[in-house]
Amino acid sequence: MKISFSAIFFILSLVAAAQSEDASVIKSIFDTELKSGGCYQDLEFLTTKIGARLSGSASAAKAVEWSKNVLETIADDVFTQPVMVPHWVRGQKEIGKITSKKISIAVNVCALGNSVGTGPSGVLGSVIEVKNFDELKALGTKAVKGKIVFFNRPMDPTFIHTFQAYGSAVDQRVFGASEAAKLGAIGVVVRSMGSNLETYPHTGVMKYDSTVAKIPAIAISTAHAEEFSKMLKADKDLKFYFETHCEMLPDVQSYNVVGEIKGSEYPDQIILVSGHLDSWDLGQGAHDDGAGCVQAIEVLRIFKLMGFKPKHTIRAVMYMNEENGLRGGNEYARLAKEKNEKHIAAIESDEGGFAPRGFNMEASDDVRAKIKSWRTLLEPYGLTDFDLEGGGADIGPLASQDVPLIGYMPDSQRYFSYHHTVEDTFDKVNKRELELGAASMTALVYLIDKYGLK
Amino acid sequence: MKISFSAIFFILSLVAAAQSEDASVIKSIFDTELKSGGCYQDLEFLTTKIGARLSGSASAAKAVEWSKNVLETIADDVFTQPVMVPHWVRGQKEIGKITSKKISIAVNVCALGNSVGTGPSGVLGSVIEVKNFDELKALGTKAVKGKIVFFNRPMDPTFIHTFQAYGSAVDQRVFGASEAAKLGAIGVVVRSMGSNLETYPHTGVMKYDSTVAKIPAIAISTAHAEEFSKMLKADKDLKFYFETHCEMLPDVQSYNVVGEIKGSEYPDQIILVSGHLDSWDLGQGAHDDGAGCVQAIEVLRIFKLMGFKPKHTIRAVMYMNEENGLRGGNEYARLAKEKNEKHIAAIESDEGGFAPRGFNMEASDDVRAKIKSWRTLLEPYGLTDFDLEGGGADIGPLASQDVPLIGYMPDSQRYFSYHHTVEDTFDKVNKRELELGAASMTALVYLIDKYGLK
Repeated sequence: MKISFSAIFFILSLVAAAQSEDASVIKSIFDTELKSGGCYQDLEFLTTKIGARLSGSASAAKAVEWSKNVLETIADDVFTQPVMVPHWVRGQKEIGKITSKKISIAVNVCALGNSVGTGPSGVLGSVIEVKNFDELKALGTKAVKGKIVFFNRPMDPTFIHTFQAYGSAVDQRVFGASEAAKLGAIGVVVRSMGSNLETYPHTGVMKYDSTVAKIPAIAISTAHAEEFSKMLKADKDLKFYFETHCEMLPDVQSYNVVGEIKGSEYPDQIILVSGHLDSWDLGQGAHDDGAGCVQAIEVLRIFKLMGFKPKHTIRAVMYMNEENGLRGGNEYARLAKEKNEKHIAAIESDEGGFAPRGFNMEASDDVRAKIKSWRTLLEPYGLTDFDLEGGGADIGPLASQDVPLIGYMPDSQRYFSYHHTVEDTFDKVNKRELELGAASMTALVYLIDKYGLK
Repeated sequence: MKISFSAIFFILSLVAAAQSEDASVIKSIFDTELKSGGCYQDLEFLTTKIGARLSGSASAAKAVEWSKNVLETIADDVFTQPVMVPHWVRGQKEIGKITSKKISIAVNVCALGNSVGTGPSGVLGSVIEVKNFDELKALGTKAVKGKIVFFNRPMDPTFIHTFQAYGSAVDQRVFGASEAAKLGAIGVVVRSMGSNLETYPHTGVMKYDSTVAKIPAIAISTAHAEEFSKMLKADKDLKFYFETHCEMLPDVQSYNVVGEIKGSEYPDQIILVSGHLDSWDLGQGAHDDGAGCVQAIEVLRIFKLMGFKPKHTIRAVMYMNEENGLRGGNEYARLAKEKNEKHIAAIESDEGGFAPRGFNMEASDDVRAKIKSWRTLLEPYGLTDFDLEGGGADIGPLASQDVPLIGYMPDSQRYFSYHHTVEDTFDKVNKRELELGAASMTALVYLIDKYGLK
């Protein structure tokens, strides 16, 4: 019995010592970042000196150069992956008006990404308001033909995690135009994907079904959507006019940017951290996704500042074209397969630079259980939620190569006040929140590097 | 055995059913608030129509009237508790300058609350920079006499919970003037209690030791404190000049405002929810503590909207004079004792209108364990942390009556960017974050009302 107790005690002591060492390293990761981090200054440059970075734009090209330069001061190796990207441009500022014989009221609108423009003659029409596609289909061609469809289903405020509310409403924005075109509509006005009532519109990607006519699509601010809906109830004869000058130009050569610290024991095994370099053209792409880019770079910087040598290769990837094509994410996965690269895990930060809540995952139960087993090490930093499904759009294409996908999950309450709008600017990012996210990702990479995910 | 199993199964079923009913009520609390809450509009009025509410000011008196009026639309009973409060006024805007024969550089400063003013002749002097009182004492009278002491110890960024960083630095602001006066200093300049480098100063209370001369005290912005420190290292002969016009006027009659829903079973047993109505004179008192006031009112409103009848009396208290005297909190506790009132629990929200993290407590281990036993019901809403010590300044005086004290604990990362500054304005409050806080407090009150804390 004595020997057995001693053995158990010995094993428990080893486990306790490992946990205690891990706690100490993780505290050092957070201390290093909070005292000496560089990601906030990086983000300031990316967002205020370079600014919005829509795929194919001159500023997206500048962001590629900038991130190469930053990574070259930190990483062992830096390279780019060429990828052709769509080049959609907004053109001059959009016009939106509620009109009748008596009134003409300007409302705030913006073209949806990838939409065709109306050109200078605009689109004028009677309006059918619907909440969803079922309602639209029930109305049928007779009611919809020749009209503008107004999709006005709000994001459900009762979802605590706002990405779920977004997911439950965004079909209107993505597929609304083609669903309406199938019934002969001449344009669509979509309520912005915003959590609250605001007077500025949210852009975002829309997709055309190639079997129907391409009709122009715009977003209207949530506050103006509410007003418009009230006015329509009072006067069904109101018309809507909008004018957009957006167009899709030929594809442009662009790049993913990659920087890595080589693993000391398993240089061919990669732990990937990432964000996407492109952003919508409104605002400065601060939370979406400048934050994710500078946090991914910061993982390498923290290890360098600490003099920590990982066993596996830690690779930071700045993807191009998440917003309106995912060309960078697809090309990265294609190359990974072609080169037979081994990814231990792929992590993306693309939910904003807010305070830590946890990590979401697209991974096996075993991987999820392993990450949850680290909870006591992570929860002092606000990382308590490991149950949601997730990952990230850019790392998604790696799923077919059996790579565990992990999304850094910050608090989601403010994201959809800024997302895809003029308000997504540097001043909306809190320095400590951004840094805590970078340190959270670094802590997870440290644990994966030490213990693996199998 | 069969009977025994059945009995266990029966008990487990009852527990599961109760948990399931509680989960359902708590979801209904959050749904009600997120769909139909009124606290954001209340806060907009309080902060933008009434504004800053320093004790003794005309706007503090307006806030008393306003909160009475709002509570009268919700509560069964509304009353006030008269209390005499200090009436400190800032006077005209302060001046701060770094000077020498060659230069005169303006820096951003503000008088600390309760400080004497310099008057129009200001204070000019050589400067001794110190990090703490030990360093000051080691320098001694010879080095300090006739000089201005510059306290420049930053809040430690490595504390994850920023209130701990505040607690570790705030002695400079509260006691710095008298500590310096003991050694013959003529004034003090204190680095602002801010988490990050900012160019605006943070005010806050300071206290004089009655045994030494009252010397004037100001805060300098964190960014300017850094600059000043660098300049002093390069040129020890630099002087500092500051001019403040603040003064303490005679006490003013003011009030705590109280509204309550009477308990259906135990009307004489009170569950208290609270915030403080007064604020500093800079900014609008939005996070500190307009948020706490409207959240306390909202607890009553949510129950009313839901048609929920609590067993115990739920009392919302708007305390007066938390910032520079705590007269309201002391008077409330005195009256509670005098009337032999029974408080089941006292809850305060005074850490800002940010997203939920948990509740901190000054309570027995049993009470803490009971609240932690509700964790599975609360963590879907981000409430995961129940371990920190806390409560709230205003409810503090109830501790001697053996009342469990509970502080609503939101995420703390942004608080000390706004606290006691011109930046503490309505636009810094996110609607959903504010509402989640109100619903969190309501959920806790629901559980305490149902199960008690014994």
